[in-house]
Amino acid sequence: MELTPASEIQYRTRNFQQKLVEQAVDGAVVLLQSDIFYFTGTVQNSYLFIPASGEPVLMVKKSITRGQQESPLKNVVAIKNPKQIPEILSAYGYNGFSKIGLELDVLPFNIYKSYENIFPNTEFVDCSPAIKETRAIKSSYEIDLLRGALTVSDQAFLAVPSFLREGMSELELAALFEAEMRKRGFAGPCKMRAFNQDFYLGNICTGGSGFYPNYFDGPVGGQGASVAQPQGAGWKKINRNEVIYIDYTCIVKGYTGDQTRIFCIGELPAKLVKAFEDAVLIETEIVKSIKPGTLAEEPYLLALKLAAELGYQDNFMGYKQDQVKFIGHGIGLELDEWPILAKGMKTPIMPGMTFALEPKFVFPEGAIGTENSFVMTETGPQRLNTAPEVITYITC
Amino acid sequence: MELTPASEIQYRTRNFQQKLVEQAVDGAVVLLQSDIFYFTGTVQNSYLFIPASGEPVLMVKKSITRGQQESPLKNVVAIKNPKQIPEILSAYGYNGFSKIGLELDVLPFNIYKSYENIFPNTEFVDCSPAIKETRAIKSSYEIDLLRGALTVSDQAFLAVPSFLREGMSELELAALFEAEMRKRGFAGPCKMRAFNQDFYLGNICTGGSGFYPNYFDGPVGGQGASVAQPQGAGWKKINRNEVIYIDYTCIVKGYTGDQTRIFCIGELPAKLVKAFEDAVLIETEIVKSIKPGTLAEEPYLLALKLAAELGYQDNFMGYKQDQVKFIGHGIGLELDEWPILAKGMKTPIMPGMTFALEPKFVFPEGAIGTENSFVMTETGPQRLNTAPEVITYITC
Repeated sequence: MELTPASEIQYRTRNFQQKLVEQAVDGAVVLLQSDIFYFTGTVQNSYLFIPASGEPVLMVKKSITRGQQESPLKNVVAIKNPKQIPEILSAYGYNGFSKIGLELDVLPFNIYKSYENIFPNTEFVDCSPAIKETRAIKSSYEIDLLRGALTVSDQAFLAVPSFLREGMSELELAALFEAEMRKRGFAGPCKMRAFNQDFYLGNICTGGSGFYPNYFDGPVGGQGASVAQPQGAGWKKINRNEVIYIDYTCIVKGYTGDQTRIFCIGELPAKLVKAFEDAVLIETEIVKSIKPGTLAEEPYLLALKLAAELGYQDNFMGYKQDQVKFIGHGIGLELDEWPILAKGMKTPIMPGMTFALEPKFVFPEGAIGTENSFVMTETGPQRLNTAPEVITYITC
Repeated sequence: MELTPASEIQYRTRNFQQKLVEQAVDGAVVLLQSDIFYFTGTVQNSYLFIPASGEPVLMVKKSITRGQQESPLKNVVAIKNPKQIPEILSAYGYNGFSKIGLELDVLPFNIYKSYENIFPNTEFVDCSPAIKETRAIKSSYEIDLLRGALTVSDQAFLAVPSFLREGMSELELAALFEAEMRKRGFAGPCKMRAFNQDFYLGNICTGGSGFYPNYFDGPVGGQGASVAQPQGAGWKKINRNEVIYIDYTCIVKGYTGDQTRIFCIGELPAKLVKAFEDAVLIETEIVKSIKPGTLAEEPYLLALKLAAELGYQDNFMGYKQDQVKFIGHGIGLELDEWPILAKGMKTPIMPGMTFALEPKFVFPEGAIGTENSFVMTETGPQRLNTAPEVITYITC
């Protein structure tokens, strides 16, 4: 299997260590799998210590064999219980901590309390913002991995006309679509850092299904297969002349591409065709307007203005009371990375940042719009997926 | 869509309220989606207050429309920000709290801190054990839902001979297997309450793939599709005369069935055939030995003893240093519910508890064993899945 290069891990670690120094902490204990993978190149049941300066130590509960095979870190050692962390770190010369960073945005309270016992007389601070900032700027190695995930996504979208048929259920279509990605290396789950925000894998809504709102902080809900999973594909049969909305993440080698395309068996009402064209128009205007340094809220504010001018006040990014207040989101090892292209976000969009842009509209007749994945370059956003941005009509 | 009956929600709430009274708390603020679904019948971005006595209040941020349609609770109201919780509860006569329960096993530290601000001068206690205890005893309504999920699982396993072929990759097999469940209503994600413990959907290992250990607290790892997702199906091609191990969860209407079956194209070495028979033997002995009141550790201790007598010290529930110390786990809305059939677990297995039993062995040649899902009845465990417990040989 392809391993993460040592140089890549070193580069990421150095960037994060700079922020640790700025935060005046002695180091960070990193526990979330996506962060551990980012800084070690392996996903184990483990505890990672990154000192403000010096070599990190990965302490692995299970599986140490695999951790040592996969991680280019110099210090990968076995551990049985997190209580041993101070003793192991001391052997590497790391001790007498006064301030340690923890991922306080995701760490469950009871686990946090156990670290108060493991490191008595130590102050804990949240190192997640520093991790998110570090991870937000992707290396060219990461951008290639993301492009690889989107290539698989493209292949699945291009295959849709070969299996989409009138009368099949949304769930049957989801099964076939997901299988196209899966056989090409898709491996979930789709990770979100936010508490309680599962996107599962994606969202297929046909006709009125796209009008169902749900818990998710996204523009489109879907009826879902049951009240226990009220999102995406459900039991509804697919009809002629209705909008078929497919919004899917594609996670390959850990990286999460995100793309939405529209299909139809037969013909779409002129109103929906116009809405699709307007969504593409909004996207085009946003892409033209973004340069390195553009604040993350600006694309949203521009989209909001254009949508209002085009008459979509009640339909833009959800219907009426269920409208969401963003136009895009960072993508990488998680689906909700930085930058968040939303009102109030004043961070600049910098080269190396990767994000999905998704202008969408919701009508009683269904959901429609577009979504592509981009990387910011020195000259502006570059699209990473290649499936044609058109409504694909199935004529069988 | 099928809604959870009001009587079911009332019964669950009453059971939990009894425990709240025992814990001497004024009520619990429930936030985890699986717990919210259990007590409300709907999955929304919401905040649920269950008082120690009286009617619960579900405060919904998104989507209030859907929350009101789906939940049989009397009090389902809109909320914009969790800061409004005390004001809303006060309108229902709930105020002056001295002690409130929170799900401290899963609640991220930063969210916990925000509740300290929302409820000043209030002590917080962990109400997750009380929730887990309540959820551990399933009603007949829930057992029927679990049986439904396992029927879909059975159908997928029975379909395997129609598509399993020599030379396909594990990922191709996974794609086809998952599609069989998906089109019949499977909707993930597979939920685990433990931090960092993703099982994704399941595990397909063929031949030596089954010898790869990984992070997961289970007997079998698998190579996986990449170092970012080192679990289950990978790129290995499936050969003749090797063991094909398929362990999958099947989540339908929120309930998680769990089943493992063994396949082979051609013939298996006698050693592996014997190991399969011994796994079934161990399961049979366990099932005979369990009665209502049996302590949760006893099945594990019995299995450990039998495995040692049969000569599998190094192979039982993992290989050598990667062996795990349990023989089964509770199943329901999550994959790691109570009871945990593991060393040191002194809780009695009671009627209504549902669990998976999975005696398995790992050899350099691959992983083999069995797994079925059970409900405890007054007279002993009853199997909920029906796929024949045999090695299925494909002769094409």
